[in-house]
Amino acid sequence: MVIDLNADLGEGFGIWELGDDLALLDIVTSANVACGFHAGDPVTIRRTCAAAVDRGVSIGAQVSYRDLAHFGRREMDLEPEELCAEVLYQLAAVDGIARAMGGRVSYVKPHGALYNRVCRDEGQAAALVDAVVDYDPSLPVLTLPGSAVHSAAAAEGVPTIAEAFADRAYTSAGALVSRREPGALVHDPAAVSARAVRMAVEGSVTSIEGTPVPVSARSICVHGDTPGAVRLAQAVRDGLLEAGVVLQAFA
Amino acid sequence: MVIDLNADLGEGFGIWELGDDLALLDIVTSANVACGFHAGDPVTIRRTCAAAVDRGVSIGAQVSYRDLAHFGRREMDLEPEELCAEVLYQLAAVDGIARAMGGRVSYVKPHGALYNRVCRDEGQAAALVDAVVDYDPSLPVLTLPGSAVHSAAAAEGVPTIAEAFADRAYTSAGALVSRREPGALVHDPAAVSARAVRMAVEGSVTSIEGTPVPVSARSICVHGDTPGAVRLAQAVRDGLLEAGVVLQAFA
Amino acid sequence: MVIDLNADLGEGFGIWELGDDLALLDIVTSANVACGFHAGDPVTIRRTCAAAVDRGVSIGAQVSYRDLAHFGRREMDLEPEELCAEVLYQLAAVDGIARAMGGRVSYVKPHGALYNRVCRDEGQAAALVDAVVDYDPSLPVLTLPGSAVHSAAAAEGVPTIAEAFADRAYTSAGALVSRREPGALVHDPAAVSARAVRMAVEGSVTSIEGTPVPVSARSICVHGDTPGAVRLAQAVRDGLLEAGVVLQAFA
Amino acid sequence: MVIDLNADLGEGFGIWELGDDLALLDIVTSANVACGFHAGDPVTIRRTCAAAVDRGVSIGAQVSYRDLAHFGRREMDLEPEELCAEVLYQLAAVDGIARAMGGRVSYVKPHGALYNRVCRDEGQAAALVDAVVDYDPSLPVLTLPGSAVHSAAAAEGVPTIAEAFADRAYTSAGALVSRREPGALVHDPAAVSARAVRMAVEGSVTSIEGTPVPVSARSICVHGDTPGAVRLAQAVRDGLLEAGVVLQAFA
Repeated sequence: MVIDLNADLGEGFGIWELGDDLALLDIVTSANVACGFHAGDPVTIRRTCAAAVDRGVSIGAQVSYRDLAHFGRREMDLEPEELCAEVLYQLAAVDGIARAMGGRVSYVKPHGALYNRVCRDEGQAAALVDAVVDYDPSLPVLTLPGSAVHSAAAAEGVPTIAEAFADRAYTSAGALVSRREPGALVHDPAAVSARAVRMAVEGSVTSIEGTPVPVSARSICVHGDTPGAVRLAQAVRDGLLEAGVVLQAFA
Repeated sequence: MVIDLNADLGEGFGIWELGDDLALLDIVTSANVACGFHAGDPVTIRRTCAAAVDRGVSIGAQVSYRDLAHFGRREMDLEPEELCAEVLYQLAAVDGIARAMGGRVSYVKPHGALYNRVCRDEGQAAALVDAVVDYDPSLPVLTLPGSAVHSAAAAEGVPTIAEAFADRAYTSAGALVSRREPGALVHDPAAVSARAVRMAVEGSVTSIEGTPVPVSARSICVHGDTPGAVRLAQAVRDGLLEAGVVLQAFA
Repeated sequence: MVIDLNADLGEGFGIWELGDDLALLDIVTSANVACGFHAGDPVTIRRTCAAAVDRGVSIGAQVSYRDLAHFGRREMDLEPEELCAEVLYQLAAVDGIARAMGGRVSYVKPHGALYNRVCRDEGQAAALVDAVVDYDPSLPVLTLPGSAVHSAAAAEGVPTIAEAFADRAYTSAGALVSRREPGALVHDPAAVSARAVRMAVEGSVTSIEGTPVPVSARSICVHGDTPGAVRLAQAVRDGLLEAGVVLQAFA
Repeated sequence: MVIDLNADLGEGFGIWELGDDLALLDIVTSANVACGFHAGDPVTIRRTCAAAVDRGVSIGAQVSYRDLAHFGRREMDLEPEELCAEVLYQLAAVDGIARAMGGRVSYVKPHGALYNRVCRDEGQAAALVDAVVDYDPSLPVLTLPGSAVHSAAAAEGVPTIAEAFADRAYTSAGALVSRREPGALVHDPAAVSARAVRMAVEGSVTSIEGTPVPVSARSICVHGDTPGAVRLAQAVRDGLLEAGVVLQAFA
């Protein structure tokens, strides 16, 4: 029983901070580093990569739409050529900084609205995968199993890593409940921790309807930008370790 | 007698274009590719790198202040840590795209106000050189001989390549005449071409006072964003070839 | 027979220019001035407003998504509160500059992807109209008759001005043919001019299927950013004047 | 004895927040609202103006260099025409939003590096004042007495309001001690409060050398973005009220 814990990190910009990066870096095994398009100025990227390298935490490029004003949370109808080039730019920038700090980018994770879009839009998913192929086709994409980007990556021979969300409700069909629905988020650290353990040990989660749903994940995402994020992430880590699960990055 | 011709390229942004990149790529041997901070969106960077690779033109990272609104032409009092990280980000982004297109960044050239600043400001020059050291200390910096950045690079073991400006007036002390002075720019293609030839063949230029001044340059910069830029660059290239000078990138 | 001619103006940014603003200002009666979000830095806005005031050309705020990199041409899924505040900001900024130059903003026209979105999306249309209501509910919105934004404005008592496109093909149902379809654009100046005259004099246009379609427009839009734009706009103006149509701004 | 308390507000951007705006709005009498160039997205500007109007707090336009990445804290060598147009744009945008919320901009205060620059650079100070003259020459500029911008405003008939800093050390010549010097900042709330009272009641402050220095201020600035900012601002307010000083906006 081996699982990775990933979180979004380096999501400040200039003077503005978001979340407690150093605390989270002591908890997770993979850091999704913001690349400058939804968050993450170069000083922050550099500092985050250096801290991740120091702690042996794996670095991923958390690529996004170019939209600081809305934190990459609004879908943008980009042309595939634009999305591909913008992802390539971000991936290259963060990988270069990570290498300068003694590490490297070892996976790609889309952020926010781009994550949602490439999970369902084949054309946009293909554009994102094209950027990975152009840069380094051995880099895995961290995403939802069964999504459009999962299929697009498979079609190009790009590896994928399945992730699950311990603090998000699932439907009985195994999909995430929309954040706009009541009960979409689980807030209680003990409950989230228990869900993470069951995901890792049994490959299962209880759906919002109360039924068991199979969940096959190599990585569990914990959120870093909510109040109580560190405490919740710590509870997940502690729960997994107590259950005998080995925490280990996939990359 | 071997000389390199360099020009700023890829300086459009989104819908906006600047200069005739493809025409210039058939003339120069080195392309200073804008990195996205003063100009150069990812689609443009990618297209420019691909076209340079196609033609065997060397690619440089034309790093700049983050200032699209003023095209990187206004000095900014950055902290050294900021300048270093911002240069590193740009360098990594363009190098990654260049590699994806089958090439690579083989030198660094600061743009506009940053160029002027690091020619005279030791602290800022050191910050720029630190970024090169962090990324790849074998990458040469293309700059004015005798400048602060030239010294800073030498101190860190980073190679420098001296450049001269065939269309700029020089003082009898060998400095560039400020653009704000009358006669600072030479506009006549024949005159610029003749100056370039004399620089390459004799290592000399006639100063604005009429005296001969030694100029030692491995590269000559031609401007791409002025009216008649292509015609002027072509005249320089033709003049050099007619004089038996070999046009060859330094990197 | 009175008609207004409107065109997008001030769509450069910093060093980059787009179209021949001064030539177009001698042709049109209404200038849709870019507000800084898809194009239009403050110096350009100021210069464009001053030139419009000098020539007695009416000034409109050409409000857009915040997206310089894609020129406001990609739809963004903004929250209504965001769209409303962003439109209000742009409207206020350009109106203030126009007033400082001796004029004022006298209408609002959405740009690019926002134009398309508010023509069909009621929620986004309402958010845009809310901004107009907040700022000055007497300002008309220049848009397509029958669109969602037309209805949203009517519902709030905000006036609307109907516009037509002399160089765009219409379906027999009176809708614009998508730019992605063949024949969507009419390029011949004489043909565009004749269409404009028929729109103004007869309130009619020949559809792409060859049938007559009623078109009721108080303003005709001419494009400023295409090659030959000035010549085409001049042909439209000349044709209308020769046909005895009075060119007059609506606001 | 009447004094104004001013603080920088609305200095978040998108998802990022800075300081506790609502708490400070219950303490100050004037709110320097960020205009979008160093901080302040349209939603935040709108919300901040609405909250200020609700509480009867005066609204000022806190104009800045265009530099989100460094929070307007790095000097930029703008051309006067650029600075003037950029200030005008910001002033107009925030005034328009303030008016839509039932208030108005009633003064101008430069932010960060621009504040420092126009205090000593006559050309840049004149450019800033030109923008105020263009927009509304009756709007006062809140600044340091004796500064270049103070003189520039006086020369154009633009009113100025003198401000003092209760938590900054003064030299015996009455200048602010540079933030880079030891002792530049006073951190103890009781001490800061006592200094504010003495400024308001006696028009005096004890210099860093221990000598009394005359300080003539109609407004005292309290900082909002430091840890403990609200507590410190509250101490200043309480101290002033206990000393019988009337807290009242100047505009």
